[in-house]
Amino acid sequence: MAVMQIAILAYPGMTALDAIGPYEMLRGLPDAELRFVWHEPGPIVTDSGVLVLGATHSFEETAAPDIILVGGSIPATMSTAADEGALNWLRRAHQTTTWTTSVCSGSLILGAAGILRGKDATCHWAGQRVLSTFGANPQRDKRIVRDGKVITAAGVSAGLDLGLWLVGEIAGRARAEATQLCIEYDPRPPFDTGHMSKASARNKADAARMMTGMISARDAGAELVAGSKVMWTNVIDRVRSRSAAKP
Amino acid sequence: MAVMQIAILAYPGMTALDAIGPYEMLRGLPDAELRFVWHEPGPIVTDSGVLVLGATHSFEETAAPDIILVGGSIPATMSTAADEGALNWLRRAHQTTTWTTSVCSGSLILGAAGILRGKDATCHWAGQRVLSTFGANPQRDKRIVRDGKVITAAGVSAGLDLGLWLVGEIAGRARAEATQLCIEYDPRPPFDTGHMSKASARNKADAARMMTGMISARDAGAELVAGSKVMWTNVIDRVRSRSAAKP
Repeated sequence: MAVMQIAILAYPGMTALDAIGPYEMLRGLPDAELRFVWHEPGPIVTDSGVLVLGATHSFEETAAPDIILVGGSIPATMSTAADEGALNWLRRAHQTTTWTTSVCSGSLILGAAGILRGKDATCHWAGQRVLSTFGANPQRDKRIVRDGKVITAAGVSAGLDLGLWLVGEIAGRARAEATQLCIEYDPRPPFDTGHMSKASARNKADAARMMTGMISARDAGAELVAGSKVMWTNVIDRVRSRSAAKP
Repeated sequence: MAVMQIAILAYPGMTALDAIGPYEMLRGLPDAELRFVWHEPGPIVTDSGVLVLGATHSFEETAAPDIILVGGSIPATMSTAADEGALNWLRRAHQTTTWTTSVCSGSLILGAAGILRGKDATCHWAGQRVLSTFGANPQRDKRIVRDGKVITAAGVSAGLDLGLWLVGEIAGRARAEATQLCIEYDPRPPFDTGHMSKASARNKADAARMMTGMISARDAGAELVAGSKVMWTNVIDRVRSRSAAKP
C-alpha cells in the first residue's frame, strides 16, 4: 500500500486546535505521512502569540499530497486567503488530492482559492456570510459538510469530528471506532452553548466581544485590507470569466 | 486584577491534543498568561514524531504558576515521571497553585510527584491500574475528577471538557458559555465508541493494538525501565515514610 501524504497548512496566526484536533485523529492511520506545510519549514506562531508550531515542509516539497487540511484563524484568515503563494499551492495540490478539507474559517481560504465555487460548505458561524461570497452554498447547521472530495467542518472543535469521520472513510469503521476509543472521544461538555441554536443572546454578544478582543487593532486593520483585496479579486474573476464565456 | 499564569508542561513525546485542547479553552481568559514549560525553552517533538511545539519558558523561570497542566503521552509518560527535574518543579509549584491539573496519562506524572496520594483521580482508561499504585483512588467512569485543587481528566480529548470547566470556575459561567460558542464546542462524533463502556471487545483489542503500534521498541524499553524506577521509588518512599512515622 502506498503511503498517504497528509498536508496540514501551518500559517502564522492559525488557531492551533483547528489543526491539532484532526491531526490527533489522523496520525494513527496506517501508512500515513503527516506534514505541516508553509512557504518554508520553520516556526509558526499561532494566534495566541505564545504557542509555536513547526512547519516541517515547504509548498514546493509538497506538490501532490493525498489530503489537504486547512484550519482557521481569528487574526489571519484573510491575510492567508490573500497569500498568492498559499493559494497557488492549494489550487494545484487540490487537483490531485483524494480529500481537500477545512476546519472553521479555513474554508474561507479554500474559497479564496476558488475551490468552493458551487459547492455545499460550512465554516465557523461567524464566517458563514463571507463563505457565500466565494460562490459556496453555506450549510449553517451541519457539523461536517461533504461535497464530492471537499469536506468542510464548522468552528474549531469540529475538527475532531472531521478527523474521526475521515479515518472512517480512509481506513474503515473498525479503525475509526478504535481511534475514538484510543482518544477517549466521549465528549461531555460541562455547558451546552456550543451551537448558535443553543446560545442565548448574551452568549452571542459575549462570544462576539471575546473574538474581537482576541485580535489586535493592527491585525484587524490588516485583515480588513486583505479581506477587501480577496473580495475584489473574487468579483473581478467572476466578471472576467463571464465575459470570457461570451461569444 | 493580577495576571494568572498558566503553565503547560511541554515534554518530548507528549500527546499534543492533551495540551492543546485545554490551551484553546483557557487562552481566551482575561488577564491570563499562558506558557509552555520544560527544562529549557526550545522545540519539543511530540509523540507523532512530526509535530513540533515550542517550550517557551524554563522551570526556573516559572517558579509559581497559578495553574499547572500536565498532559499525557504514549511513548514518554514514564520517562517523564522519572525525570527528577520535572518532578521537583511539579512538587514545588504545586504548593502555591490555585489549580493543579492533568489530562490523560499526565495524572501518572502528577502521581509520581506524590501529588495524588489519597486523592480521587482519573486517567486514560489504559492507565487506571498504574494510577492506584501512586496512592490515588481511580474514578474510572468520570470525565473530570476534582479533589480539592487537583483536577484530573480522562484520555486525550477530555482536555477540552477540563479546559471549559476550568474557564467556568475561574471566570464564571457566562464566560465559559461564550468560550464554548467561540470554539463551537457542540461535539457530534460520527461514531460512539469513545468510552470503554460503549466499546466492543473488538474495539478494545484494536485500540490496544493501535497504541502498541504507536510506540517504538526502543521507547517501549525505555518506558519499562523508567516505569520500574518510578514504581520502586514510590514503594520505597512509602516504606521510608512509614518507618519515619514510628516512634
